[in-house]
Amino acid sequence: MGGNSFGKTFRITTFGESHGTGIGVVIDGCPSRIPLSEDDFVDEMARRRPGRTPLDTPRSEPDRVEILSGVFEGLTTGTPIALFVRNQDVKSEPYEIIRSLFRPGHADYTYFKKYGQFDFRGGGRSSARETAARVAAGVVAQKVLAPLEIRIAAYTLEMGGIRAEHIDLDAVHKNPFYCPDMAVVDKMRKVLRAANEAGDSIGGIVEVRATGCPSGLGEPVFDKLSADLAKGVMSVGAVKGIEIGAGFEAARLKGSQNNDPMTPAGFKTNHAGGILGGISNGDDIVLRAAIKPIPSIMMEQETIDREGRPARLKLQGRFDISAVPRIVPVLKAMAAVVLADHYLRWKSIL
Amino acid sequence: MGGNSFGKTFRITTFGESHGTGIGVVIDGCPSRIPLSEDDFVDEMARRRPGRTPLDTPRSEPDRVEILSGVFEGLTTGTPIALFVRNQDVKSEPYEIIRSLFRPGHADYTYFKKYGQFDFRGGGRSSARETAARVAAGVVAQKVLAPLEIRIAAYTLEMGGIRAEHIDLDAVHKNPFYCPDMAVVDKMRKVLRAANEAGDSIGGIVEVRATGCPSGLGEPVFDKLSADLAKGVMSVGAVKGIEIGAGFEAARLKGSQNNDPMTPAGFKTNHAGGILGGISNGDDIVLRAAIKPIPSIMMEQETIDREGRPARLKLQGRFDISAVPRIVPVLKAMAAVVLADHYLRWKSIL
Amino acid sequence: MGGNSFGKTFRITTFGESHGTGIGVVIDGCPSRIPLSEDDFVDEMARRRPGRTPLDTPRSEPDRVEILSGVFEGLTTGTPIALFVRNQDVKSEPYEIIRSLFRPGHADYTYFKKYGQFDFRGGGRSSARETAARVAAGVVAQKVLAPLEIRIAAYTLEMGGIRAEHIDLDAVHKNPFYCPDMAVVDKMRKVLRAANEAGDSIGGIVEVRATGCPSGLGEPVFDKLSADLAKGVMSVGAVKGIEIGAGFEAARLKGSQNNDPMTPAGFKTNHAGGILGGISNGDDIVLRAAIKPIPSIMMEQETIDREGRPARLKLQGRFDISAVPRIVPVLKAMAAVVLADHYLRWKSIL
Amino acid sequence: MGGNSFGKTFRITTFGESHGTGIGVVIDGCPSRIPLSEDDFVDEMARRRPGRTPLDTPRSEPDRVEILSGVFEGLTTGTPIALFVRNQDVKSEPYEIIRSLFRPGHADYTYFKKYGQFDFRGGGRSSARETAARVAAGVVAQKVLAPLEIRIAAYTLEMGGIRAEHIDLDAVHKNPFYCPDMAVVDKMRKVLRAANEAGDSIGGIVEVRATGCPSGLGEPVFDKLSADLAKGVMSVGAVKGIEIGAGFEAARLKGSQNNDPMTPAGFKTNHAGGILGGISNGDDIVLRAAIKPIPSIMMEQETIDREGRPARLKLQGRFDISAVPRIVPVLKAMAAVVLADHYLRWKSIL
Repeated sequence: MGGNSFGKTFRITTFGESHGTGIGVVIDGCPSRIPLSEDDFVDEMARRRPGRTPLDTPRSEPDRVEILSGVFEGLTTGTPIALFVRNQDVKSEPYEIIRSLFRPGHADYTYFKKYGQFDFRGGGRSSARETAARVAAGVVAQKVLAPLEIRIAAYTLEMGGIRAEHIDLDAVHKNPFYCPDMAVVDKMRKVLRAANEAGDSIGGIVEVRATGCPSGLGEPVFDKLSADLAKGVMSVGAVKGIEIGAGFEAARLKGSQNNDPMTPAGFKTNHAGGILGGISNGDDIVLRAAIKPIPSIMMEQETIDREGRPARLKLQGRFDISAVPRIVPVLKAMAAVVLADHYLRWKSIL
Repeated sequence: MGGNSFGKTFRITTFGESHGTGIGVVIDGCPSRIPLSEDDFVDEMARRRPGRTPLDTPRSEPDRVEILSGVFEGLTTGTPIALFVRNQDVKSEPYEIIRSLFRPGHADYTYFKKYGQFDFRGGGRSSARETAARVAAGVVAQKVLAPLEIRIAAYTLEMGGIRAEHIDLDAVHKNPFYCPDMAVVDKMRKVLRAANEAGDSIGGIVEVRATGCPSGLGEPVFDKLSADLAKGVMSVGAVKGIEIGAGFEAARLKGSQNNDPMTPAGFKTNHAGGILGGISNGDDIVLRAAIKPIPSIMMEQETIDREGRPARLKLQGRFDISAVPRIVPVLKAMAAVVLADHYLRWKSIL
Repeated sequence: MGGNSFGKTFRITTFGESHGTGIGVVIDGCPSRIPLSEDDFVDEMARRRPGRTPLDTPRSEPDRVEILSGVFEGLTTGTPIALFVRNQDVKSEPYEIIRSLFRPGHADYTYFKKYGQFDFRGGGRSSARETAARVAAGVVAQKVLAPLEIRIAAYTLEMGGIRAEHIDLDAVHKNPFYCPDMAVVDKMRKVLRAANEAGDSIGGIVEVRATGCPSGLGEPVFDKLSADLAKGVMSVGAVKGIEIGAGFEAARLKGSQNNDPMTPAGFKTNHAGGILGGISNGDDIVLRAAIKPIPSIMMEQETIDREGRPARLKLQGRFDISAVPRIVPVLKAMAAVVLADHYLRWKSIL
Repeated sequence: MGGNSFGKTFRITTFGESHGTGIGVVIDGCPSRIPLSEDDFVDEMARRRPGRTPLDTPRSEPDRVEILSGVFEGLTTGTPIALFVRNQDVKSEPYEIIRSLFRPGHADYTYFKKYGQFDFRGGGRSSARETAARVAAGVVAQKVLAPLEIRIAAYTLEMGGIRAEHIDLDAVHKNPFYCPDMAVVDKMRKVLRAANEAGDSIGGIVEVRATGCPSGLGEPVFDKLSADLAKGVMSVGAVKGIEIGAGFEAARLKGSQNNDPMTPAGFKTNHAGGILGGISNGDDIVLRAAIKPIPSIMMEQETIDREGRPARLKLQGRFDISAVPRIVPVLKAMAAVVLADHYLRWKSIL
């Protein structure tokens, strides 16, 4: 119960560290006879991979997903699907400095306090590399959702303070930031470059939108669809906030403004973000996640060592300037996993 | 697995409807030999109870918690603690209109779509009355946390657009809105009254702050303390957003601003909200929840009936103008439940 | 996670003690729109009730099941069904002696070691009275199974060494021992009476047979149908053994004898007890449980007190002579709960 | 929730098929700072391996356990431990015949009915090869139990009708059948050889005994230590029965015989098998499992094909004559996993 599983009926369990043998996931509860091959993972894994922009970290592994079990003659068998992504290019020397010093904003300190030791190389288990397993699981989840014809889109709504003003899903994969508004891509590039030159990093906001979801997914009270989405999204390393539909804006609306009028043709507005009482209402499911700036920066920082003594830390090497683009496919995957789980749960009571 | 349980080691299962026999919770996993009596619930239950302000709904039940099991000679026994709050004053006639019409912003439509029928009286299972069970569970959770000397405070940070400018915990229980800033209480009263006169409702933001939590609570990856808090908070009916520490503001900060420098005396700032890598870091745990305006308003609304035909709905009766004050003790309870669960989980690996 | 829940998709959580307010169960995951009323519980609860034979304990409560939630206008709503059986006739004075002395064969000692205290009145949580909640849950489980047309029978295969030689299901409810062979009922009565006169108690073997179960229920590896039946049955207080199909006899058979030949008309034999690889094969599911003699006997026994000092214990009052007949409806209920859980799990992947 | 996980606090999830890439397990909830290396698995894996006796199947893989995650610098990190055993020598040609024909006594038919297809090679997921993952998990579980000084022994109590008359734990690893009584080893060899010559197979009974377990492990009601042991043991492929302590014999004892008298020095007898009310009582935990004869026999058998048409099946190749010896380390492992899980659960409420 160490917290490395997610979902109930469609249940994923991930393992692996940034600089260990690799990263993997076991999926239990996937229905049988779904076509699945290692090629199915290539596109989504590539979207999560670093090295897409000139400013990314140079570690550019192919991130090939190996199917270890659960598929026979090209079809899922109903038994656990184990997926594994072998680590490559894992030089751990750059991390020797954090053997003794805690990096501000990272999990080094808390892992050390909780476990008495930790695999500090690249953040070990707390590394963003862990999300590779989520993206792989998301690919399977999307296949599980196929009968529902749900389409899930995720994109960079805002990065470094630059916000997309229009949502054009066709634009998303035409720029390295997964920005749905080509008009602001250049501005995003500039803030990214400026942060890079300053040795700093930037955050942003990712929006996820699921279209075509029927009404009925989600459970009352604790396992609300919104609650499980909140957990799934907040469990991603850099996420510090999550909102559904109008979200924090709803806190300032009147009931007469926030209520979505119902008509025979559907809801007139979608402040609810597609979820009422924790159950999907048939409208688009819309959520946004706040992504903090990457804590690994090139500027000198104040910290302490394992004995609690004050120290100065200046990281060497190259790091991503923003987690935002790379987190886009991860949040899409988490949404897919949550929806697949609730879809299968829903089927059990139909 | 209908979604009515929460927590793993300290696990609560709630049941009951707004206008049924009552509302209850079974707590499994509570350690033995903790003093517990029915009087322990009185204060927190009173804080959640309607009828505290002149604008509240007139249903003012005493909400007496009955201990059905798990306590012997004044001490918990380690076996399940069942708590029950009997419903009183449950006139269901005012709800006859929603036998056929869906109330915008409520769960009527989605429950009907999912289950084919629903207990529409007062919202049935989706009613805010369900939170009575959460508050009762929170009282027990706080007792479980006693050895850690964690103090959890919750208060109205903002209501109807009026925001507290200072946080004075002593002020919280000196005004009916649980506002930590006496200077804005009058303004809150005015927006509440204005909404009432308009037949409308308002939302707001609740902040929860846990002090004294040691580093080490929370699990890696999916069961991060932040993820479980997000789920617990988002599972409360009116919540549309949750953020930890700097939250959505972090999306616009630089890494050099958002990282909390570490010193031998502790963290210099707390943008992390007391959680790093999903594990408590010893600093205050701080979260905020966005509360939507109550969907029950007195204005006529556009809706449909069970057959999908257009209809106009004008609710009769009296309703709360804002869920905000009453949700304050509920979010405090959810924070306590999450912390108690993770405290007991932590003990298993110590 | 104190161990008081069972099942995954159809999940029951029980609470209550022998001499507390009552015994209850919360059922989560039950589909909606199933007709359910308090009258539905009368027959099965009566079968579990003591006082059916002149030798039973005189505590003869009506054991009326109260539906606290989850049913509206006669139909289940899909939300948690809470059932409660209020305790009556709960004189706790006879139990004062076990405030200090541990009863051999009972859970007094282990509860005290584990929890530091326990509700000793009538065994508290470890009392057979807890099974009232299981029987109530079993009634709902059988309703969930209705679409499958599974019929579950349970009966006394053996008691006090007297074994039924023929299985006539029509006979089961025509004698107070639920024996399927009227020819041995008198012998059973005699051994029961002899044990009573000696102040002693007797055990036996209960068989459960489920007919009409389609092939496909049960999961690979850990949640085999056989494994969940084993857990469900072994979790009943007095059970010390469980076997499926040929069971322990299979240990002495050859493969050529034990394999059930397959023909277009079905299996020729049923040594498998209806389960292959943990999944139902369409044949009758057959299991047997070994029931130990009730540990409460009228003879003086050697024991210790809470301080570990030697003592002699002679119980006062009247007790059942055998748990066997009363456990018959309990094991039937557990089989129904396991099958309902696996039926709903199965639906999620169809 | 496909049924491939076991345990709650110490939770294992297994994956893999007989003739796929390999067999693996992810362990979540293991405490940190436990020394663990790949060499730790060698002995137990060797005990489960075929090829120990001249009559075993010739597939003799080294079954080297690879640690994929969760260990850093020789110590567990508290994060998931993924273990993998690569399959070798996996000729699947001999299995072409079962592409169309169901093997009596195997899971072929039920997997096909449930999943619509299955990996028939060597039984795929339902193969005994799956138990390699259990044995590996058991090695880690035993390390978790180290602070308790529990010693778990498992041995062949009976095989092919030949029963050990004395239990000498020193003898267990001095003969290829793990028989604790050297005096009957020759007889066991003879029945095994006779079955082999007849192209038949034999079953038996395995006993597991855990010494040194403190009182307090196990939970009330459903997660009784006995219930979890029953599930864990019954979940092993060839097991058809499980009994604790006196087991089925208790069904014929009187209460005065079956009750274990308590003295200041401990229990006088151990009919309870070390468990009272589902909680360990400090005495030896004793269980026995009935192992059916291996269904793969060389004799011609009556069966059907995938279209339900009658067929004759005569398996080619070589198979084990009895699962008994190889299942001994598997049941030891399952006992260790259950005890480790309950040990960690127990710690959470201490």
